[in-house]
Order: sequence, then structure tokens, then C-alpha cells
Amino acid sequence: MVYPHDRVGDDMPAPVKLLVVSQHAEAFRQLLHNAALPNLEVRAAPDPAQALPHCDAAQVLFGAPDMLVPLLDHCPHLQWVQSSWAGIRPLIDAPRRDYRLTGVRDIFGRTMAEYVLAWILAFRRDVLSRANARHWDDSPNGSVQGQIIGIAGTGSIGAEVARFCQSFGMQTRGLNTAGTPTENFDRCYDSSSITTFATHLDYLVALLPDTPDTDGIINHSVLDALNPGAVLINAGRGNSIHYPDMFRALQRGQLGRAVLDVFPEEPLPQSDPLWQMENVTITSHTAAPTSTTAIVDIFCQNYSRFQAGDVLLNEIDFNQGY
Amino acid sequence: MVYPHDRVGDDMPAPVKLLVVSQHAEAFRQLLHNAALPNLEVRAAPDPAQALPHCDAAQVLFGAPDMLVPLLDHCPHLQWVQSSWAGIRPLIDAPRRDYRLTGVRDIFGRTMAEYVLAWILAFRRDVLSRANARHWDDSPNGSVQGQIIGIAGTGSIGAEVARFCQSFGMQTRGLNTAGTPTENFDRCYDSSSITTFATHLDYLVALLPDTPDTDGIINHSVLDALNPGAVLINAGRGNSIHYPDMFRALQRGQLGRAVLDVFPEEPLPQSDPLWQMENVTITSHTAAPTSTTAIVDIFCQNYSRFQAGDVLLNEIDFNQGY
Repeated sequence: MVYPHDRVGDDMPAPVKLLVVSQHAEAFRQLLHNAALPNLEVRAAPDPAQALPHCDAAQVLFGAPDMLVPLLDHCPHLQWVQSSWAGIRPLIDAPRRDYRLTGVRDIFGRTMAEYVLAWILAFRRDVLSRANARHWDDSPNGSVQGQIIGIAGTGSIGAEVARFCQSFGMQTRGLNTAGTPTENFDRCYDSSSITTFATHLDYLVALLPDTPDTDGIINHSVLDALNPGAVLINAGRGNSIHYPDMFRALQRGQLGRAVLDVFPEEPLPQSDPLWQMENVTITSHTAAPTSTTAIVDIFCQNYSRFQAGDVLLNEIDFNQGY
Repeated sequence: MVYPHDRVGDDMPAPVKLLVVSQHAEAFRQLLHNAALPNLEVRAAPDPAQALPHCDAAQVLFGAPDMLVPLLDHCPHLQWVQSSWAGIRPLIDAPRRDYRLTGVRDIFGRTMAEYVLAWILAFRRDVLSRANARHWDDSPNGSVQGQIIGIAGTGSIGAEVARFCQSFGMQTRGLNTAGTPTENFDRCYDSSSITTFATHLDYLVALLPDTPDTDGIINHSVLDALNPGAVLINAGRGNSIHYPDMFRALQRGQLGRAVLDVFPEEPLPQSDPLWQMENVTITSHTAAPTSTTAIVDIFCQNYSRFQAGDVLLNEIDFNQGY
């Protein structure tokens, strides 16, 4: 059997040279083979060292941003990079910008909504204490209906989380750079209004990208504005939290609980005092696991657009960082 | 200030005599006063004994079915009973049937969806073990996307639960008497096909009414058809489960976990062996707490319809039992 991308000949343009660099390289290579994209030559490597020999020819890179960064200067023919992660900051921070960069924004929303709703409903409906109840206790649980959730970061992931929250009857507030009104949010606030955004929230969910603007943005004035006993969930990037401020808010109960999925250093070192705090839950960067199939689907859609000279899905603006 | 239902005079028909009987009688009375329904005279009592003196005049009863049953024969002018609970079996089982009976079906759906999703997401996303994690563990959690849930009972509550499950990308199957296709269910099965309905389910949720037909309907052949390690959630009525069969399925792991909200006898006696089982969670009839405000809203809507001679909301067919 001859796959379209195996054909070469006088009637075909030279194949596009793709280099996949990822710990999941073999899975991606197999899925790309099954997709049978036309006129594409695929090389795959599990790390930058093994990828290096293929860089000179590569026109397209696909994979993990931190593995791609050291290869950028070895790819003279680079035209396009498809990230296999939502976090593309390593590429944004690298000096080279003469290529098109695309992300994988849209596939994490529903999985992230599972994560956020799992924790919110668990707290509100007393799942942790009821799971192993050994006597009858019919004291009523609250409902999330009418509670207020603020989501910092109103991109496709935040908007999908907000959609489920609205379905459950919660009030939804969003925070984004310019306060742009966004679907599924009752109201959006701009960055300078973050304290107003945070006022009387029952839940604060941070889904922010890692940029200089978001460093320590969740600080004491934000945390003090929340309803007493509020829940903080960070499933964006570890830099958003001002950790000393969060510690103090947890210790005096202003913050009832923090559920933290991401950290400045991962794995979170075993010596970190967060491990010892009763009202802190650490979920070890499992909130929105990637799906190789979904990521390859995005690559395939973008490859067709790339070949046709169309706009690419999830294309990143290097200056904005998203 | 004169409320409409305080006015009497030659130009008005005789007021309708309402008798409220419920442990929440005073809350209901106050809410009804605030609603200022026209031409209505309200008496309220917290138990049947205190209600008895008002029965002779009562044309409408509103309250808890088990409190209303002993009063039925003392109400010669009874025309309509509005239940304040979803469970109206005590009234169905009483011999008297010469009145209109209405339930409160529609207000529990979203609260029940919170309950069911809280437990499903908690198990799937490992909330119980991650809540107090003390070391990094990034082994991925599964997603509910693509999992199969079967909901026995496709009334307004079941359909609302199914709506959220579909939003999360689950496959939804319903079970109802005639296998009637129902919104939010990929497919519905009739009572005689319950084993087919149960085959390969990851979650079985029972939201069945208490009728002779549902006694012990969740038995060994249903439980054996589920995917190994499946989760059973009963938030309907306690009679649906065949308890010895459930015990055996839990003990040999065919059933991974049972989350039980309702029981044949409540509170569940402290001597019941269910309290001692590791993979059983007992939530003490808290799944869908009633809201007095929502219930009074339903009464008010139905009172307008009653006065106008219209069809009532949630009217019960005594023969079907729902």
C-alpha cells in the first residue's frame, strides 16, 4: 500500500519536512502515519539530541516547547512550529520569531471543566467528609446555585469552565487584559480591576498564562477581597500566585482552601511547606492531561491550512504571548 | 395595608380554604402570605394533630404526604392536594382518590445533578485520594468523556442529570417503563430490557419512584451486567435495591462503589452492616434538599391554574403512581 505522503515524483512538489520532538514522539509519528497527510515527510525524536541531525532539513517543528527551543537556531528552513502544549512561554521568550507559532488551546476546556467542577462540587456537597461517613447526618449541604465564581483568564479553557458553572446556576465573573466581554461570563473585568473582580467571590480559579504580567498577580489584596473561607484553584501556571500572601491567607482562614495543580518548580520539592498544610490540596499537574490524538488532530487541521496558505488555528502573537 | 386574600365581601366568592401541614408549616405560611394569592384563606399546622380542627373546612391540602394521609378521611370538601415532596407514595397507597394530586417534580433536577456529578467526578478525578496528597503523583486521571452512564428513571430529574452528563461527553442511557425516547438520553430502554440497559455501564444511577414495580429492581442480573468496578448511585427511593445482591457484588468487586442516599428505613439504623463497608458511601438523604421557596412557587402557579380551572403542573396519575 502506498500512502499519499510516500509518493514522490516529477508531478509532486518536494515533500514538506516535519520534525516531531516530544517524549510522545513515537505515538505522534504513528498517529501522523495513520492520518496519511499528503506530501509530508515525518521524522520523530524523543529528545533534542536525537532530533538535531534532522534540523537542517526541517521546515515544520511539532512538539514540546522546551525541547524545541534549543533546536530553533539549527533549523535554517523553519516556517512553522506547532506546540503540543498550551504553555508556549519558552518559545515566546526565545529570541527567534521569524516563524509562525501555533498552540493547542481548544482541547483542554472540557477536561479542565471536569477538574474545576470536581473540586467545587466536592467541597460544596461535602464529598470528602461524607465519603466515609459512619453515622447518619442529614444536615443539608449547600448548593452551588447562586454562588459566585471568578475565573482569571477567559480564553477557550476559562470560557468552557464558565459554561459549566453557569449551567449549575453560578454567577460567573471573568478577568482578562482589557475586560473584554466573553461568552459564558456574566461580567468581565480588566487587569487593573482585579480587586473589584475578586470582591465577594466564593471561588477564584486562576487559568492564566505564564507572562511577566501575571507574576504574583494573586496577592494579598486579591485574596483579602474574596469571601471569607473562599476556595482558590490554580490550574494555569505556577507564577500567578504570590506564595507568601497565599500562606498568610490560608493560615488565618481568609482562604478556606487552595487546590494547586501547577508550581514554579515541578515536581514541587518534597521540602516545600505546602505539602504540610491541612487546607492545601496538591494535584501534581493532572488537571488537564493532554491527549495525543486530539493534539495530532489539531496538527492535521493546521497542516491543511498551512499547505493552502490559510490562517492557522490557535496562532500565537509573539508580542501578546498568547 | 389590605392583602387581596384578606378581602371578603359580597362581590367576592367565598375564599378557598387551604390547610398547610408540614414541619416547615410556618415558613410556608409566611411565604404564602408574601405571595398574596387572591381569595385564599390559609391555616398552617406543624403536625396532623394540630391540623385536625381545620380539616372540616379544608378544600386544599399542601404539605408532607405522610402527614396528610391520616387527615384525608377528615376532609369532606377536599378537592386538591399539593405535595411538598417528590415522594408521594403514601398518598398513592391510601384508598381515597377523589381529589387532584400534584407533586413537585421539576425543582430537584439541578440539585440532583450537582450530587451525581460531584460523586462521579470525585471518583474519576481521584478527589478522595488527592485531597490530602503528601507527595507528587502525576499519574494521569481518567476523564469521564466517553464513559457510559445509565440512569434508571428518566423523569425531569433524570433528564436534568443526563443533560450535564452529555455536556461532559458521557454516553447516556435511560430506563423507563415503555422505553420512551427522552431528551438528553442517547437511548432509552424499557423495563423488560433492564439487563441490556445495564450492560457495560460505568455508572448506574437509580432515580426511581417507590412503586411495587421497582421493588428490588437493581438485582444480581443488573449488577452483573455492569462494567467490573462500576459505581452505583441510588438517590431515588430505598426500595429499588436488592440489598443482598448488592452486598455480594460489592464484596467481590463487581461493584466498585455504592453511593446510597436513600433507604427503606431512615435514618439507616446504626446496626446496619452497610455502615461498615469500605466501598459504600452513605449520604443520609441529602442529595436533593427541598427549597421551601421553590415549593411555594409551584403551589402559587398551581393555585392560579386551580382557580382558572386549568390543567395543574405535575399532576399525578393515581394508577401509574407518578
